[in-house]
Amino acid sequence: MKVVRDAAALAAAVGEWRAAGQRVAVVPTMGYLHEGHLALVARARELAPRVVATIFVNPTQFAPHEDLGRYPRDEAGDIAKLEAAGCDLLFAPPVEVVYPPSFATRIAMEGPALGLEGTHRPQMFGGVALVCTRLFGLTRADVGVFGEKDWQQVMVIRRVVADLALPIEIVTVPTVRAADGLALSSRNAYLDAGARAKAVALHAALVFAAERLRAGETAGEACAAAEKRLLEAGFDRVDYVAVRREGDFFELDRLEGAARVLGAAWLGSVRLIDNSTT
Amino acid sequence: MKVVRDAAALAAAVGEWRAAGQRVAVVPTMGYLHEGHLALVARARELAPRVVATIFVNPTQFAPHEDLGRYPRDEAGDIAKLEAAGCDLLFAPPVEVVYPPSFATRIAMEGPALGLEGTHRPQMFGGVALVCTRLFGLTRADVGVFGEKDWQQVMVIRRVVADLALPIEIVTVPTVRAADGLALSSRNAYLDAGARAKAVALHAALVFAAERLRAGETAGEACAAAEKRLLEAGFDRVDYVAVRREGDFFELDRLEGAARVLGAAWLGSVRLIDNSTT
Repeated sequence: MKVVRDAAALAAAVGEWRAAGQRVAVVPTMGYLHEGHLALVARARELAPRVVATIFVNPTQFAPHEDLGRYPRDEAGDIAKLEAAGCDLLFAPPVEVVYPPSFATRIAMEGPALGLEGTHRPQMFGGVALVCTRLFGLTRADVGVFGEKDWQQVMVIRRVVADLALPIEIVTVPTVRAADGLALSSRNAYLDAGARAKAVALHAALVFAAERLRAGETAGEACAAAEKRLLEAGFDRVDYVAVRREGDFFELDRLEGAARVLGAAWLGSVRLIDNSTT
Repeated sequence: MKVVRDAAALAAAVGEWRAAGQRVAVVPTMGYLHEGHLALVARARELAPRVVATIFVNPTQFAPHEDLGRYPRDEAGDIAKLEAAGCDLLFAPPVEVVYPPSFATRIAMEGPALGLEGTHRPQMFGGVALVCTRLFGLTRADVGVFGEKDWQQVMVIRRVVADLALPIEIVTVPTVRAADGLALSSRNAYLDAGARAKAVALHAALVFAAERLRAGETAGEACAAAEKRLLEAGFDRVDYVAVRREGDFFELDRLEGAARVLGAAWLGSVRLIDNSTT
């Protein structure tokens, strides 16, 4: 597996593949890879003969008080995992390659970026849209593969790709979970043993809310019941539990077609998010 | 020449050309075409076997008090001119094709978008960057051709293309002028005979400033002298006369390498812009 850190080397490698008529899939990550990321690489390999992974902890999607500085990193481990997973190239640029001093473009997202994560992390989705658009361009990928754990993020990325008519297709992969149901996340590394034991309650509460929706409860009732469960299970604070329509991320009062129950809650200083189909 | 108004028909036409290995050049315009636009089409024909022109008066780059509603239009005349110029396809979409109800992306530009036009029309360059990015994506063009009359706009478009790593090359064409030196512009249609006679002073004043810079004057001196000339020639108000470095649009105190003298001034309710090389 090639590891490249600058745009010119990336363009040269990808240009060779494209000249040979090979499609390229990209898996954008912030590193500290787990089985969820590797499932994205596996899906990418099904979609294209060439797979590029990117590792970049994107400063434009973090607010000053967030965990940019302490976000977990293990590039040597990541390289070994990607190599074993059959990734062709890792693009792991320093900040100044992604955002050179002359960089002058910002993106702001509305629509699916409003509410939920967009309320609690108002800077995030503009930063996500910006870095994904740039990474899609630099990698010239035909298809981008994303995990469904960050469902709202997927909605935002689909939106910016449609709006800017970017020449890339977005494919998603269902969330990979630990045996007890906890969604794999690099941020799980922040959890001590006690918090890790409680963390399973997040997915359980969202599944519980989905069941109650299917049983005919309103979104308000089902989400309130799930929030109660989270606090009873030892979560310290709930940012939201909410129901959104699957295709367009519109808020729903009652179940009506495919939907997602999404939640975000805190165990001490660790914030976890997850979602469940209905 | 094909005239298409929706994204699917555009994609079908361009997709056929691309499948046949033909490069595509795009000439984005707001219509009411003059010889300046046709020079862009001629240049586009040299650059690619297929030429798409777009006509779209982009609402996101106009402020509420500006001339969106009265911007001159003559689609039938434009079609005849484009056809005669050898354009292959005109994309002339209604607003809801460019900005569907679900559209949720905004772009904000800094760097070359700051100052000058960016000061006097603060909403404009974000709107220009947004619509150009979308039009580049929809047309899947390999090269975009722009006129140098809107020099700051060219700088902004080059910036957003570089920042978002859009797969398009930007080529510019020198300003086409009337016999007396007035830069051709659709907005010249707003000028009555008296104003038209005075308008020539804009280009003359910028050329005069460029001469004084070459003679060793500071930017402050040369621009102040040009502003004075504009007012003496009957312009009612000068928004700016300024000197910027050619490559990066940095402000200059003295001539140093290639630069542009840029100006914007008012004749009654008509605002004209122009620029001169040094």
